[in-house]
Amino acid sequence: MPYSTTKLAAISAGLSALVAMSSHAGPEQAPALDADASDPVKLGWMEGFPPPQNKLIGQPDSNYFSFPKLRWTVCHFRELLPTKQVSRGLGAPIPLPVAPEDKGIDYVTFTPIGSDTKMTWKDSLAANYTDGILVLHQGEIVYERYFGALREDGKHGAMSMTKSMTGLLAEILVAEGTLDENAKVVTIVPELEGSAFGDATVRQVMDMTTALRYSENYADPNADIWVYSAAASPLPKPADYTGPRGYYEYLQTVQKEGTHGEAFGYKTINTDALGWILARTTNKDVATLLSERLWRKIGAEQDGYMTVDSTGTPFAGGGLSAGLRDLGRIGQLVLNGGELNGEEIFPVEAVENIRSGGDKAAFAKAGYKALEGGSYRGMWWIFHNPHGAFAARGVHGQTIYIDPTAEMVIVRFASHPKAKNAAIDPTSLPAFQALAEYLMAKNATPEQPEE
Amino acid sequence: MPYSTTKLAAISAGLSALVAMSSHAGPEQAPALDADASDPVKLGWMEGFPPPQNKLIGQPDSNYFSFPKLRWTVCHFRELLPTKQVSRGLGAPIPLPVAPEDKGIDYVTFTPIGSDTKMTWKDSLAANYTDGILVLHQGEIVYERYFGALREDGKHGAMSMTKSMTGLLAEILVAEGTLDENAKVVTIVPELEGSAFGDATVRQVMDMTTALRYSENYADPNADIWVYSAAASPLPKPADYTGPRGYYEYLQTVQKEGTHGEAFGYKTINTDALGWILARTTNKDVATLLSERLWRKIGAEQDGYMTVDSTGTPFAGGGLSAGLRDLGRIGQLVLNGGELNGEEIFPVEAVENIRSGGDKAAFAKAGYKALEGGSYRGMWWIFHNPHGAFAARGVHGQTIYIDPTAEMVIVRFASHPKAKNAAIDPTSLPAFQALAEYLMAKNATPEQPEE
Repeated sequence: MPYSTTKLAAISAGLSALVAMSSHAGPEQAPALDADASDPVKLGWMEGFPPPQNKLIGQPDSNYFSFPKLRWTVCHFRELLPTKQVSRGLGAPIPLPVAPEDKGIDYVTFTPIGSDTKMTWKDSLAANYTDGILVLHQGEIVYERYFGALREDGKHGAMSMTKSMTGLLAEILVAEGTLDENAKVVTIVPELEGSAFGDATVRQVMDMTTALRYSENYADPNADIWVYSAAASPLPKPADYTGPRGYYEYLQTVQKEGTHGEAFGYKTINTDALGWILARTTNKDVATLLSERLWRKIGAEQDGYMTVDSTGTPFAGGGLSAGLRDLGRIGQLVLNGGELNGEEIFPVEAVENIRSGGDKAAFAKAGYKALEGGSYRGMWWIFHNPHGAFAARGVHGQTIYIDPTAEMVIVRFASHPKAKNAAIDPTSLPAFQALAEYLMAKNATPEQPEE
Repeated sequence: MPYSTTKLAAISAGLSALVAMSSHAGPEQAPALDADASDPVKLGWMEGFPPPQNKLIGQPDSNYFSFPKLRWTVCHFRELLPTKQVSRGLGAPIPLPVAPEDKGIDYVTFTPIGSDTKMTWKDSLAANYTDGILVLHQGEIVYERYFGALREDGKHGAMSMTKSMTGLLAEILVAEGTLDENAKVVTIVPELEGSAFGDATVRQVMDMTTALRYSENYADPNADIWVYSAAASPLPKPADYTGPRGYYEYLQTVQKEGTHGEAFGYKTINTDALGWILARTTNKDVATLLSERLWRKIGAEQDGYMTVDSTGTPFAGGGLSAGLRDLGRIGQLVLNGGELNGEEIFPVEAVENIRSGGDKAAFAKAGYKALEGGSYRGMWWIFHNPHGAFAARGVHGQTIYIDPTAEMVIVRFASHPKAKNAAIDPTSLPAFQALAEYLMAKNATPEQPEE
């Protein structure tokens, strides 16, 4: 570990956690506190003037992304890190239609994966450490709740759902003919010659079937994830630091291991490489693109923002924070194939391409149990289930779950103590399916007059 | 200098500059580049993926607040530092009325202070390194221009105009009876006992007539400004750092020198103390208060934001960035005595108190030549001129200039190479007066039919 010192470890610990957890997380302990006991408002994080030492979450040594602190941090990244705005523009928001309240939703029941005991929708919210959840059915809000540190006018880390936003931008450019999915990356970003990305195709990067030598073994101080984290940190580097600075320098150091296109490997650095590809293709960074292509077009009610590295590069693989309803607008736009109120925001082919799915055989090699038979396409997760559902997903329970058959979009922000969605899927995916069926049944059998 | 090391100097250099320049600035060189030659867009700062080394403005060693880099930085603080949102809420903005364009404004002429040569309004914009300027007359936009790195949907550092926002909040609370201007500070913030602030009154803090031992001699490495800057920096402290952490710890170390109430002394730390007083009075930090009492009430079209220290405390003395038209809304609201579209946003007494002015004799001791006969009240500058004009002012040319007689509000964002407004007033204050007279004359003589 040529550059590492205790100081660097301390300095980059917080961001390392953020970055690292955005892909696979290491071994974790069982949570000590349930959702209620870990409620960040009840715990009083950052309350007081100044907050007392045991309630302080700051840079750099407070380990701000450890549970239960992370329950506060997911709503406050900008107060800890430099960020770039994802502007909504200056106009009036386009309100999302709201359906009459349906009290039945809370009592929709489902059986968690690996369990014999049924659970209600309502109980699943606490089980999943939900911070905010929005359900759209046929374009109308049928359910919306806020918990923990999130309020309707707040923002929450999208974590790796950021990847799906970056991927959607790429699919849009591919559909528009601006970006050639079959091009070798080196032809777009010459600096990546000699790195693993150079001879991969844009599509392989978009679907994460690149063959990368990239270790996320947290116990190994030489693991690539630590080098990446140190490079990505916007905080000052130690004087003796000689490693790469920023996402772009780091990406040039990534070496190949294997053959591109053979196996799906969920590695955040693919999305950072895709961000670079998009920037070179459009001459705009990902935050600016998200603003121009999505946030300014959807009638968003809040700006979003992205964390940046020390060269101002937005974190394409995990840096977005946004409002719950604004991600609902994005989800609904994707469900609608890019159309909003009769206007084509982007070509329908962008969504069709995602929904068609990726290479199932390549995906199977990664061994995701709750996602068996699934695939990954354009940085979205495709379930290949009977409803044709697909999703954006991020650590600690973030999801935009789109069920085209049920005409349903669910956006969930969460701060589950476990990073991996494998811990959260059992009380989530069956709940989403049950809610889809409930909404479809309701739709199929409108209330009839008696007799 | 117990804590200082070369590393600390490097780490805190950027923020030190920001903080330091917010009050009096040290000796400066003559500008090498004029407004056009220093245009940050033409210079290409932060352009490219990644930006080349000679176009990079980043943390911590790029000296980002030096001219001409500062012309980019004033529009991008959040990309370099942690910040807290000043939320506008979620509703639709209230548009500012726009008057028909008046091409005569550009040709309004005035004589700069200390000059024999007349200058046009239009030429004054470049002379002052204007980034954005908005003129409201009788509540309508009569002039609006953007230059440099600023666009209508961008934000610009308000610098010490932040003080006037904090001061306005204090005047509102005083007018509402929530804050006693005669109370000793120690009765509100007990931690300030033993510091210079403890036995000062709230009003003395609000009017900066406290007697503080506080040196801003930049050549002296032990000067208080450096200790303050190091404390205020949100960036990680060096391992050997033993100084105060955050605004609140620093304020407790400030010692008294002289007698409170006798002389005006423009020291940013007064505003930070006032921010603490406001927080303890309302249980809300200044960013939250600005949102609740102003931004959410004025139909703002953009969120603002404030830089924060490592404990999350917003920089009450200089940390605000905001949109040009939103500061126009604030200026118009102040001119209107707190009324907007028939609604009382705050009591008129808050503005009356500011306009009544501060202690002229105390102010005179500070020796501001361009402001002779003026005073400072509630963190606003009162000119005591025939028009009753008063202003928020910040380094490098920021101003909200309110002329009640002419029913005129001017908001100017600028990035003049010199920090002190003494360098900018000569081509600004006479221009504002000339424009006021032009608009009044226009109003007095509506176009007449011929003959």
